[in-house]
Amino acid sequence: MKDFTSAYFTMSEQDAVDYIRTKLDFFDKNAELTCREIGDGNLNYVFRVVDEKSGKSIIIKQAGPVARISDAFKLSPDRNRIESDILKLKGELAPGFVPEVYSYDPIMNCCVMDDLSDHEIMRSALLKHQKFPLFADHISTFLANTLLLTSDVVLEHKDKKDLVKQFINPELCEISEDLVYTEPFYDCEQNEVFPGTKEFVVEEFWNDQKLALETAKLKFEFMTKAQSLIHGDLHTGSIFIKKDSTKIIDPEFAFYGPAGYDIGNVIANLIFAYVSSNFVIEDQEKKEDYLLYLKNTISDVVQLFTDKFLKLWDEKATERTAKYPGFKEVYLNSILEDTAAVTGLELSRRIIGLAKVKDITSITDDNDRVLAEKICLTAAKTFILNRSDIRTGNDFVKVLLESVSAYSESIKSN
Amino acid sequence: MKDFTSAYFTMSEQDAVDYIRTKLDFFDKNAELTCREIGDGNLNYVFRVVDEKSGKSIIIKQAGPVARISDAFKLSPDRNRIESDILKLKGELAPGFVPEVYSYDPIMNCCVMDDLSDHEIMRSALLKHQKFPLFADHISTFLANTLLLTSDVVLEHKDKKDLVKQFINPELCEISEDLVYTEPFYDCEQNEVFPGTKEFVVEEFWNDQKLALETAKLKFEFMTKAQSLIHGDLHTGSIFIKKDSTKIIDPEFAFYGPAGYDIGNVIANLIFAYVSSNFVIEDQEKKEDYLLYLKNTISDVVQLFTDKFLKLWDEKATERTAKYPGFKEVYLNSILEDTAAVTGLELSRRIIGLAKVKDITSITDDNDRVLAEKICLTAAKTFILNRSDIRTGNDFVKVLLESVSAYSESIKSN
Repeated sequence: MKDFTSAYFTMSEQDAVDYIRTKLDFFDKNAELTCREIGDGNLNYVFRVVDEKSGKSIIIKQAGPVARISDAFKLSPDRNRIESDILKLKGELAPGFVPEVYSYDPIMNCCVMDDLSDHEIMRSALLKHQKFPLFADHISTFLANTLLLTSDVVLEHKDKKDLVKQFINPELCEISEDLVYTEPFYDCEQNEVFPGTKEFVVEEFWNDQKLALETAKLKFEFMTKAQSLIHGDLHTGSIFIKKDSTKIIDPEFAFYGPAGYDIGNVIANLIFAYVSSNFVIEDQEKKEDYLLYLKNTISDVVQLFTDKFLKLWDEKATERTAKYPGFKEVYLNSILEDTAAVTGLELSRRIIGLAKVKDITSITDDNDRVLAEKICLTAAKTFILNRSDIRTGNDFVKVLLESVSAYSESIKSN
Repeated sequence: MKDFTSAYFTMSEQDAVDYIRTKLDFFDKNAELTCREIGDGNLNYVFRVVDEKSGKSIIIKQAGPVARISDAFKLSPDRNRIESDILKLKGELAPGFVPEVYSYDPIMNCCVMDDLSDHEIMRSALLKHQKFPLFADHISTFLANTLLLTSDVVLEHKDKKDLVKQFINPELCEISEDLVYTEPFYDCEQNEVFPGTKEFVVEEFWNDQKLALETAKLKFEFMTKAQSLIHGDLHTGSIFIKKDSTKIIDPEFAFYGPAGYDIGNVIANLIFAYVSSNFVIEDQEKKEDYLLYLKNTISDVVQLFTDKFLKLWDEKATERTAKYPGFKEVYLNSILEDTAAVTGLELSRRIIGLAKVKDITSITDDNDRVLAEKICLTAAKTFILNRSDIRTGNDFVKVLLESVSAYSESIKSN
C-alpha cells in the first residue's frame, strides 16, 4: 500500500480503495470494496468506492496535477481546498443542496464526499427530456441563500472581507476571464466555430464594436465586483438531480464575484436545453409539452429567485443602509441585469468558444445545428446589449422566443 | 535598554533612540541623538530622532495598541505592515512622491522612514494661505500612476488578485464605511454638528430619503469595487509639502477600492481650504488672489489627472478588452463620477461627522462658520446627487462657486 501522508501522487482505483480504508471510518471492516474512476470533467479524477456487500458507497475527488481541459491551463491543486471549504459553507447556507463533505486532504489534494450515483447529471437528464418539477424551487432557494447570505447586505463586513481573502481564486478566474469574457468575441485561435455558423459569428460578433465594448465593461465587472461568494460554473453539468433532490457540485471556480453570474449560467444552460429540444424531439405533442416545461422553468427560476431574495432580504439584512427605502430594488435590479448579461455571455462562449455543450453538439443534422446555434447567438446578443431592460421571468423567456421566431421560416423549410 | 525582539510595547522617546541605534546603521557612532514624539494623528506614535551634531534625522512610526481616534475603534497594528508595503509599492509606481521606508518591524509594529521635517503638512500650509504651484502637477501624477498601474487595465490579473489579497484591510475599511458612508447621513450619536448648522443638517440631510438611497449605493461600491490600490485617506493632512516637493504619507487605510475615492478626497479638502479662505482672509485683494489659486488648483487636479490617465492608458494598458474603442472613456467617466460622489461624502462627513477639519473649525465667528458649513454641505449634496454630470475640472469648480453664490447675500449682510 502506498504512503498517503508524504507527497501528492495521482491515485489509481486500487489506491483509492486503500485510501478510504486508511483514512475514513466509513465502511465496515468486512466491506468488499471495489472502485471505478468515473470522472468526465476536465480538472479532476473522481473515484467511486462501493461496498459490494452493503451497497454503501462514497466518492473521492482528487485534483489532477494539470487540468485536463488543455495543456495550456496549468492549475494549482489548491482548487480542491476551495471546493471542500465552499461545499461546507454552502451546505450551511442552503442545507440539502450540496453533497456532504467528510474530509479534505491537502497532501493528496482530494476530498471525500457523498456518492450521488442515485442522482443524474442534469444536462444528461435534460437531453433525455426528463422533467424536474422541483428544480426551479430548489435552485432558486440555493441561489437566493448563497448569494444574499454571503453579501455585505447580511454578513458582518469584516467577516465578509475574510471570506473574500480566503476565496481569492486567480487561476480559475483567469480561465473564465479568457473563455467567457474575451475569446468568443474576437477571432481567437482557441475558438471552435461550427463551419456553417462561421459567417454569422464573424459578422454579428467579431465585427461588432458595440458588442465588444459591452463585453469589456462586463469583464471588468467580473474582475472587480466582490459582491457574493458565487459558484462560478453553475451550468447543468454542475448539477446532480433526481425527482426530489437537487445537488450543486464542482464549486472549484468559486470566488467573490457578481451575484448574477450564477443565475445567468443556470438560465443559459436551460436555454440550450430548450433550443436543443426544439430540433431533436420529433413527436410534435411531446416537443410542445417539453418546450412549455422548459420555458416555465426558465421563467420560474427568475421569479422564484426574485421573490425569495426579497423575502430573505427583509428577514436577514443587517447593514443599515441596505434597509433604506428603494435600495433593495436597486440592488436586485443590478443582479438581474448581470444575470441577463451572463446569460448572453454563456450562450456565446458555448457556441463560439472551445468548451461546447452536448445539447447543441448532439444535434446531428448540420443545418439544424447551424439554426440552433444562430438562435442561441441571436438571443445572446440581445441579452448582452439590452441587459438593462430584462428584469422578469417573462422578459427572459421573451428574448428566447423572439430569437426562435426569427428563424421559424428557416426551421419550417428545413 | 529594553528588548525590542520579543514582544510589542509602546515606545518612549528614549526607547526610540535606543531602537534606532540597535536596529539601523543610519547614524554615526558618535551621533548625539535626541528624540521627540511629534504625532498628531489618531492612530500612531511618531518619533523624530535627530543627530544634534550633523542635523541628520529619521522618523520611527509606531502603531499604538489601540487607535487613538476613539476607544470604540480597536485596530490591529497590522496596519503598519500595510503602510510600509504600500509606501514601497507606491514609491515604485510614482517615484519621489512618498517617503522612503528603511525598515519594517512586525514585532514592535513600527517602520523607519524619511524625516520630512523640511516639508509641512499641506493643511497647515493652506491655512497660512501658502501657494504650491506644482501641487496639481505632482498629485495628478501620483493619482494617475498609482490608480491606473494597480488596476486590471495594466497589471497581470493574477498579480492584481495577489495584491487584493495582500491588502484586504477589514478594520480600517470599517472606519471609512461608518464615518464616511453611514453616520453623517442619519442622526447618529457619534456625529458632532455645530449648533447653528443643525437645523440645515436635519432638513437637508437626515430627512432626505433620496440622498440616503444614493449613499447606500455608494457604500456598496466602496465595499465591493476592487478597482485600484487606493490610499484610502488622501486628505491634505496626509500630504507633506514644500514648494518643489509633494510627499504622500499615512497610507494605512489602503486597500483595493474605487479609484475615484482618492481623487475625491483631494478635491474635497481643497474645497475646505477655499471655503475657509473665503471667510478668514481679510484683505480683499489677497483673498481674491488666493481663491483664484485654489479654484485653478481644483480644476487643474481634475484636468491633469484626466490627461495623464488617458496618456498612461495608451502607453501601459495590457488587457485586450481595455483597448476596445470607447472603453477608456467609459472607464475614466466612471472614475470621475466616483470622484464627484466622494468629494460630496468627504465634505459631508467632515462637517457632520466626528472628524473635523481645521479649515472649518478655525473660523472663529460663529455666523461665518455656519455659512461656511452650509456652503460645504450644499456643494456636498450636489456632488452626490448630480455625480453623473460632473466630468471636468470646470464642472467641479462650478458646483463650488454655485454653492458659494447661494449664500452670497448672507455673507454680505453678515
